[in-house]
Amino acid sequence: MGNCCERLGPQKNTYVRVSLPAVCLVWQIAMIILFGVFIRYDKESDAHWVEYKHKNNLTDIDNDFYFRYPSFQDVHVMIFVGFGFLMTFLKRYSYGGVGFNFLIASFGLQWALLMQGWFHSLDLDTGKIYIGVENIINADFCCAGSLIAFGALLGKVSPVQLMVVTLFGVTLFAVEEYIILELLHCRDAGGSMVIHCFGGYYGLAISWVLYRPNLHQSKQLHGSNYHSDLFAMIGTLFLWMFWPSFNSAIADHGDGQHRAFINTYIALASSVLTAVALSSMFHKRGKLDMVHIQNATLAGAVAMGTAAEFMITPYGALIVGFCMGIISTFGFVFVTPFLEKTLKLQDTCGIHNLHAVPGMLGGFLGAVVAAAASEDVYSKEGLINVFDKEGKYANRGMGTQGGYQAAGTCVSIAFGLVGGAIVGFILKIPIWGDAADDHCFDDEAYWELPEEEEETLPPVLEYNNHMIHKGQDM
Amino acid sequence: MGNCCERLGPQKNTYVRVSLPAVCLVWQIAMIILFGVFIRYDKESDAHWVEYKHKNNLTDIDNDFYFRYPSFQDVHVMIFVGFGFLMTFLKRYSYGGVGFNFLIASFGLQWALLMQGWFHSLDLDTGKIYIGVENIINADFCCAGSLIAFGALLGKVSPVQLMVVTLFGVTLFAVEEYIILELLHCRDAGGSMVIHCFGGYYGLAISWVLYRPNLHQSKQLHGSNYHSDLFAMIGTLFLWMFWPSFNSAIADHGDGQHRAFINTYIALASSVLTAVALSSMFHKRGKLDMVHIQNATLAGAVAMGTAAEFMITPYGALIVGFCMGIISTFGFVFVTPFLEKTLKLQDTCGIHNLHAVPGMLGGFLGAVVAAAASEDVYSKEGLINVFDKEGKYANRGMGTQGGYQAAGTCVSIAFGLVGGAIVGFILKIPIWGDAADDHCFDDEAYWELPEEEEETLPPVLEYNNHMIHKGQDM
Amino acid sequence: MGNCCERLGPQKNTYVRVSLPAVCLVWQIAMIILFGVFIRYDKESDAHWVEYKHKNNLTDIDNDFYFRYPSFQDVHVMIFVGFGFLMTFLKRYSYGGVGFNFLIASFGLQWALLMQGWFHSLDLDTGKIYIGVENIINADFCCAGSLIAFGALLGKVSPVQLMVVTLFGVTLFAVEEYIILELLHCRDAGGSMVIHCFGGYYGLAISWVLYRPNLHQSKQLHGSNYHSDLFAMIGTLFLWMFWPSFNSAIADHGDGQHRAFINTYIALASSVLTAVALSSMFHKRGKLDMVHIQNATLAGAVAMGTAAEFMITPYGALIVGFCMGIISTFGFVFVTPFLEKTLKLQDTCGIHNLHAVPGMLGGFLGAVVAAAASEDVYSKEGLINVFDKEGKYANRGMGTQGGYQAAGTCVSIAFGLVGGAIVGFILKIPIWGDAADDHCFDDEAYWELPEEEEETLPPVLEYNNHMIHKGQDM
Repeated sequence: MGNCCERLGPQKNTYVRVSLPAVCLVWQIAMIILFGVFIRYDKESDAHWVEYKHKNNLTDIDNDFYFRYPSFQDVHVMIFVGFGFLMTFLKRYSYGGVGFNFLIASFGLQWALLMQGWFHSLDLDTGKIYIGVENIINADFCCAGSLIAFGALLGKVSPVQLMVVTLFGVTLFAVEEYIILELLHCRDAGGSMVIHCFGGYYGLAISWVLYRPNLHQSKQLHGSNYHSDLFAMIGTLFLWMFWPSFNSAIADHGDGQHRAFINTYIALASSVLTAVALSSMFHKRGKLDMVHIQNATLAGAVAMGTAAEFMITPYGALIVGFCMGIISTFGFVFVTPFLEKTLKLQDTCGIHNLHAVPGMLGGFLGAVVAAAASEDVYSKEGLINVFDKEGKYANRGMGTQGGYQAAGTCVSIAFGLVGGAIVGFILKIPIWGDAADDHCFDDEAYWELPEEEEETLPPVLEYNNHMIHKGQDM
Repeated sequence: MGNCCERLGPQKNTYVRVSLPAVCLVWQIAMIILFGVFIRYDKESDAHWVEYKHKNNLTDIDNDFYFRYPSFQDVHVMIFVGFGFLMTFLKRYSYGGVGFNFLIASFGLQWALLMQGWFHSLDLDTGKIYIGVENIINADFCCAGSLIAFGALLGKVSPVQLMVVTLFGVTLFAVEEYIILELLHCRDAGGSMVIHCFGGYYGLAISWVLYRPNLHQSKQLHGSNYHSDLFAMIGTLFLWMFWPSFNSAIADHGDGQHRAFINTYIALASSVLTAVALSSMFHKRGKLDMVHIQNATLAGAVAMGTAAEFMITPYGALIVGFCMGIISTFGFVFVTPFLEKTLKLQDTCGIHNLHAVPGMLGGFLGAVVAAAASEDVYSKEGLINVFDKEGKYANRGMGTQGGYQAAGTCVSIAFGLVGGAIVGFILKIPIWGDAADDHCFDDEAYWELPEEEEETLPPVLEYNNHMIHKGQDM
Repeated sequence: MGNCCERLGPQKNTYVRVSLPAVCLVWQIAMIILFGVFIRYDKESDAHWVEYKHKNNLTDIDNDFYFRYPSFQDVHVMIFVGFGFLMTFLKRYSYGGVGFNFLIASFGLQWALLMQGWFHSLDLDTGKIYIGVENIINADFCCAGSLIAFGALLGKVSPVQLMVVTLFGVTLFAVEEYIILELLHCRDAGGSMVIHCFGGYYGLAISWVLYRPNLHQSKQLHGSNYHSDLFAMIGTLFLWMFWPSFNSAIADHGDGQHRAFINTYIALASSVLTAVALSSMFHKRGKLDMVHIQNATLAGAVAMGTAAEFMITPYGALIVGFCMGIISTFGFVFVTPFLEKTLKLQDTCGIHNLHAVPGMLGGFLGAVVAAAASEDVYSKEGLINVFDKEGKYANRGMGTQGGYQAAGTCVSIAFGLVGGAIVGFILKIPIWGDAADDHCFDDEAYWELPEEEEETLPPVLEYNNHMIHKGQDM
């Protein structure tokens, strides 16, 4: 039986039969205990709502569920199918791409409900975190940071390491988010800063520390095939289609959600055209490269994350998408190979070009658009509403707001780089079951693969094989 | 031309050219007649709504459409893409999985609108069934029962038999649902009892009666390949992501839908971790098995069906998911092979572990949670609202309610087992065009398959083939 | 290295390295300029909304975003995943199917916002187009016309030609839509006339002009394989599931959206059964053909586009679906081959049977249903509401309305045929980089394809190959 295992030889170090179940079970039990201590339904998801709404003269439609649930579901699809299938592009690591994405997002969202809860929703009187649909969306967002980091590590780490990446990723996320949104009072509805910029640099820093000098030994599996690229297009399209919901999911009710969706929709359309243009232009015979179509087409929405709910205008959104499609495709063609060569940075999915750089630019773009905001454009109440100019922030000038937004972007980069470096060194400890350099990008290590038998071959081939055997008999 | 048909030999008994069109056309015409006699728009989907809303001082947003339509669409995706693609995992029965699912759900939902309408929405004055979005969601739910049963039969029955399974499945469903929800006045928002428990045992009973002693002769097609498992992950993920909508789709407006979604979301996350843990633990080298990832990760939501709208608390939901991931994975590893060996029960998709048992446990769990409900936790109005304590049920104690919930679960099991056995015997009549034991799990029987030609082979192989031919010439 | 390129020989004429980037960049820059001059947020997506809602005593939930956004997202999925994956069915043109669909829809929606804006939403005082969620939905709809046309041309044209098809398609669409909806005051919520009928005949006319006499030379790639047909089912199912949202997305708030969704849901269910019945009946051994399952199952919804918001009654919807499943399957089996033979009309996806004919019939059906409308059935206010009987149209009789609806259908056919013929002649100019007759249906021309290496073969095969080599050594 010439099956794959033999071909790859014994894989001593990828044995995770103890560590993976242990981590999953222990951490899940910890979640149960912490949820038991801390997490309760908020007033809109608690059975007391019936009395609450009567007391406050509300009707059921005023429940935040109806404002945000459709957007939540779209975000949820992006996290699990979008990110998951985008990472199936490798010819022999599709299970790992979609499966580990599934695992770590499922863990991450639980830990995120706790971490974000402690920082944002803890009721100091009762010591409880009260959750509703907005917390759930934020938990999904929080996972996105770690899933982006996974993109840089795809095929090179074990599921146990990914759990560690997620544990620290969610923790760091909650802290930087607290600093950026609460302490600096930045606005970041779609998370250019807190999600993409942080997640991108976090993953790059980890990958940089985990540099594998002999990764070229896995070269034969470090690529796609016809159908794996088509599976990845499922991921791309669900990310692309639902990104307007991502950027508008936790924006203000009413015009905030409405505008955030329109800006993102427009920016994305524009990214597609420039990504296609540059992909063709950079190929010696003008052919399109699936890597660019799968990734650079999304860059406009990443960069639009912070500014989506601002009055950036529809043509402003088009310009953002235009530039990002170009920058991102350029990154895939020139910057990623350059980084790998000079900085020893191995970035499987090219998150540098899709998340890190567009996220950072999106953060600074948000700063500029915020600094340029005026009552003229937003109306008096509109400006207060969009920038939450209330309480002690009522008198913060828009220029100052812009400065804080820029500072927020720097915070997210710093958290990503420093946090990622630390996590990277933790992951270097040789106990995590990652594969050797010459066994990367292979599902064989962690998945029971179906035996591919003769029966599945196309008949003509089978015919030839029969001929061969006959021939050999003769 | 060495095409597949020849390999399989003549297939006399799978000829459905008469029976399949006849069943489809005759039943569809029957539907038209019955719809003509019975089905009308309800007041929210009728053009009279404009006058109705003025008279009752409503606005358009009060139309139930806006409360339920987003959830409906998610449920619809689960029924057609979720169930459909989950059943594409067999390497050579993917068309049958997704295609027959499509066929029987499309028929089932029509019959369900009638059957459920007669039992639940018939206006005795006019003799009409008035339908709106909630009826439509319920019709999709009703199909789910038969689609679950299809899971046990996958690859072993003809499309005509599946139509019969669906006809009786929907009929039985409507009756048991009427008994459980109306007569016993149980609550079952997500259908642990009425959908999963019933559907699971219904399918198992049919499969048990249709036992094929020589099924091992089809062994070479009774498995997956790399890409068919990836297609199945599409089904898994859409089921997983949208299950919060499934369990909240027909829950009460406001907190009911909000809470049902949160509980399901949390339970599902927890199931993933324990399914992964046990899948790895049960493999001698710690590898993950796609079957468990595709199925056991969903078990938490099945068990959460009944209790989703109750105040089970977030950590309660985590515990449910935790246990179900373990029980379901355990079932796939040990129980299904055991049942096949001792009970002669062939269950292609393992619905025993994903629907029957988790559904049953979910029913009993609901009974316990209902019995434990108190005004303290729910508030006075909340308790009335959640358990519909109105009219003659106003004074039913919570312990009694728990007892009725448990009784409801037993009713659903009984209907599933008895109904399934009867339908199984009907399907044994040798007129339905099912395949012989050695031709199961093969799309060849019912689908015109594309010829796989030499041109689609990878070039290297082609090269080798040319070499072979040359070699033979020499 | 025997890779595909060499097999196909040099492909001089498919070199688009200059034209494709040029068209994408120049047109995208034009979009930015035109958006800058014309497009602004409407009152519901502008930051002034806060003040506006206070002035008008509205709450956030009254924002049209909450009425239409869930439907929009479904429509968006149909445009990008539905149409995109439906066109992956060719074994070696899946990238082109989904990728070019992505490209032209992204361009088309921008141009549609402008074209439709000038005709429908231009504020003559300010010279601006104010956009909100309804404009966005309409832009997606407008793209659908061109994507339908793409279906007829699939595999035979270059991406540059497709951009031209879309530029003119969107332009023609906006004009015919203006004539039908504004001048003739027709109702067409789901676009049987303006989208499907127009798009279908537009594509057929182009394809007719571009007739390729030697297309049979590409015959070996003009077909599907097992997995490409499964990818196409993803497209089919997302179209099928979300079509109720398509037909209800821009229907009237309240009962209009509610009824349009129900009618479409029911018609689609019925189409599946008759499509399956006829597919089996037309096959000599009763087998189902994936082409019919992928396409004819959708025909009911196309025909229901115009009448979806009318009081066609549930059984009326069933009858429509019943007939359309039959007509469409019949078309695939008999009409398409007939048209190719006698009219020299090459229609890759069979849009004649899925869009042109069902769209035309849907237009006439709408005329009949409109003519039959009465106050009895609709109520006085309902009739006014459904048919927008206001202003100068207040006294238009229902018979007259029916006449105008029929006239509208003729307008859409005329625009499609004449416009398509003109565009076809433009595309015959030999500067667009389309492939020769013997290189059609091949992604090789425009896509950098992954090298398929020996490593990806199943182990058993590899084993055989080793044997072969050994054998040859001996």
